[in-house]
Amino acid sequence: MTVSDRWLLPDGVDELLPPNARVVEQLRRRLLDNISNWGYELITPPMIEFLESLLTGTGNDLNLQTLKVTDQLSGRLMGIRADITPQAARIDAHCLRQKGVTRLCYADAVIHARPAHLLTNRCPIQLGCELFGEASLAADIEVISLMLDTLKLAGLEKVHVDLSHVGIYRGLISKAGFERDTESAIFDAIRRKSIPELDELLSGTVGDVSIAKMLLQLANASGGVDAIKQIKSIVAGASSDVLNAVEQLESICDQLQQRYPNVELGFDFCELRGYNYHTGLVFAAYYNGYGHAVAQGGRYDAIGKEFGSERSATGFSADLKILATLASPDGIENKKGILAPFSDDNTLWDAIEQLRRSEKVVQSLSVEGEKSDAVKLGCDRELVKENGSWVVKPI
Amino acid sequence: MTVSDRWLLPDGVDELLPPNARVVEQLRRRLLDNISNWGYELITPPMIEFLESLLTGTGNDLNLQTLKVTDQLSGRLMGIRADITPQAARIDAHCLRQKGVTRLCYADAVIHARPAHLLTNRCPIQLGCELFGEASLAADIEVISLMLDTLKLAGLEKVHVDLSHVGIYRGLISKAGFERDTESAIFDAIRRKSIPELDELLSGTVGDVSIAKMLLQLANASGGVDAIKQIKSIVAGASSDVLNAVEQLESICDQLQQRYPNVELGFDFCELRGYNYHTGLVFAAYYNGYGHAVAQGGRYDAIGKEFGSERSATGFSADLKILATLASPDGIENKKGILAPFSDDNTLWDAIEQLRRSEKVVQSLSVEGEKSDAVKLGCDRELVKENGSWVVKPI
Repeated sequence: MTVSDRWLLPDGVDELLPPNARVVEQLRRRLLDNISNWGYELITPPMIEFLESLLTGTGNDLNLQTLKVTDQLSGRLMGIRADITPQAARIDAHCLRQKGVTRLCYADAVIHARPAHLLTNRCPIQLGCELFGEASLAADIEVISLMLDTLKLAGLEKVHVDLSHVGIYRGLISKAGFERDTESAIFDAIRRKSIPELDELLSGTVGDVSIAKMLLQLANASGGVDAIKQIKSIVAGASSDVLNAVEQLESICDQLQQRYPNVELGFDFCELRGYNYHTGLVFAAYYNGYGHAVAQGGRYDAIGKEFGSERSATGFSADLKILATLASPDGIENKKGILAPFSDDNTLWDAIEQLRRSEKVVQSLSVEGEKSDAVKLGCDRELVKENGSWVVKPI
Repeated sequence: MTVSDRWLLPDGVDELLPPNARVVEQLRRRLLDNISNWGYELITPPMIEFLESLLTGTGNDLNLQTLKVTDQLSGRLMGIRADITPQAARIDAHCLRQKGVTRLCYADAVIHARPAHLLTNRCPIQLGCELFGEASLAADIEVISLMLDTLKLAGLEKVHVDLSHVGIYRGLISKAGFERDTESAIFDAIRRKSIPELDELLSGTVGDVSIAKMLLQLANASGGVDAIKQIKSIVAGASSDVLNAVEQLESICDQLQQRYPNVELGFDFCELRGYNYHTGLVFAAYYNGYGHAVAQGGRYDAIGKEFGSERSATGFSADLKILATLASPDGIENKKGILAPFSDDNTLWDAIEQLRRSEKVVQSLSVEGEKSDAVKLGCDRELVKENGSWVVKPI
């Protein structure tokens, strides 16, 4: 291995250098402070946990994304978290054990074994909010509102929100009576909205023909807010689970339109991201020019159930690094400093200490000084001794 | 595995719940802002890197502390960082490539394969500052001063600082001509200050008798500021490397005493922490009642050399979680909020949005509301409608 090899980061692993690290830090603070103003309390779960804790109830997608190591103390498998949401659910159910509503938030590093998409980062900084203990639509609306507020504060003004509900597909497929292999082939084709493939799969299958027809139409029905009317007529004869899911979508859509008239809403009935994990309304926010969701979330009431403590749950998360790349929030502070000379004058140290309470002061480490580097060091003023006292002057 | 097992965290892995997570977050911000006022620029290196990058020049201690996983994309071994310092050195030498002085800081999670000491945490939040490109003592003094300022700001007022210099032991042992096995046995005994063991090892060995005598006396010579006089007489006949190291220690000690008359200084000539890694002055800060160092650092000029870009380097780091446990900084903000009712009144949402710009507002998610939970939610006021407009009143 040569010297230059040694420096290379693994594919899809990046790092934040100055001044980007500072931009992300300021965005992090701003967003967390706003989230705190919505009543969400900060948690910092650990980077590693036993694999069972990290993966319970989350399905296979997260398993594939989670790096595993053996715990040298217990010999058991540990995972390096690829998602903080299951940790928040564990903390809600096990550590806090509150009755009523619990609101939690976090902003921390996660690691993905492989990039989630081509060219995305394996080391996102996951910022998220989770709301536990409230089953009504009011919780979903609060979480979507908070997501929109977060994106707005990050400088992403014009976002498009896609709504979906896993209950539609789940309700249809559970009544259809397809064979298991067919079912997973259909699931796969629906996610890819591959109509010819679905057509072939559904026409040749043994099962409920009316449901096969509905499934085929699902793939066509996605679109703007009018799609809700379309889906209503498509699933008119379906089970109450399905009708209830559609009704929830319609109600959420109405309330969001009222609250956020400028946000573009749409429906994607084939959105089955985290299907094994989500239990109700799911949503994703898209921003002009970025090919994937910039924030996403939904209901995941099932995790609590699996652990014996049934708690309703919904939340959203986003990658701070992506937000920082897309956004141009104003007011990112760029503090200019004061260059202090190298000197063993006793009074200089006092002057520097005093100034540093509110100012950035960089002290030269040699007599030749760093005055020529002042710009590089971000200094536009210097500390000089005049008539026995230290004064700040422009360079 | 039972349900309760699933919740257990691995030994030595902890997490921060409300309100502790917020206390640590506020401490993190306060310390980073102060460090920024010293001219140190924030970096956020990745959690994972190729093992070679993480471990080059750092010696075996860090290797044992680093968890390893195979990169699924390249098949190469990656490490989950156990220390951010080598990452900062890589960034200085490879990414920034600045001439002159570069000052970097960071505050991020690291993972230790095993707890560093009995009962310590495997998931510290490492806060640190690194100064590259300055070989003079001025750099060491700046870094120690910044460490003391950081500890003071964290609420740790009365600290004790132990100084040492790896050049003393290194200079002596390199001239002694001991056999390799004897040398590592001596190293081990010196670190443990085991005088009887050293006595036995040194009396029976083939090599320079005067150096054997000096090494034996090293273990006895540690102590307060007067120890510097003692060490001077012990190593009087040693090589210039050794004398130079002692001179550096004396000079640093003088300057620190002048700048920080209230800080207790001492010397520990047997402190060989990170011996393969450190190259000059090393230091550690201790705080009343805590058995291990609360912050530590030193010179590590060798890393740059190994990578072909020779850069002087010194720095310090501390675990934010430990600082937060020990410290009681004043002014940790505990913002009380306003409870808003559940209502579909259009004007309510506007009132809440307005208030949230500066206040914490928690909205009830059902008509029964969460008024009885107001204290749990951290609210001391409520939003009520009076004469057609929303007003804030005490609960």
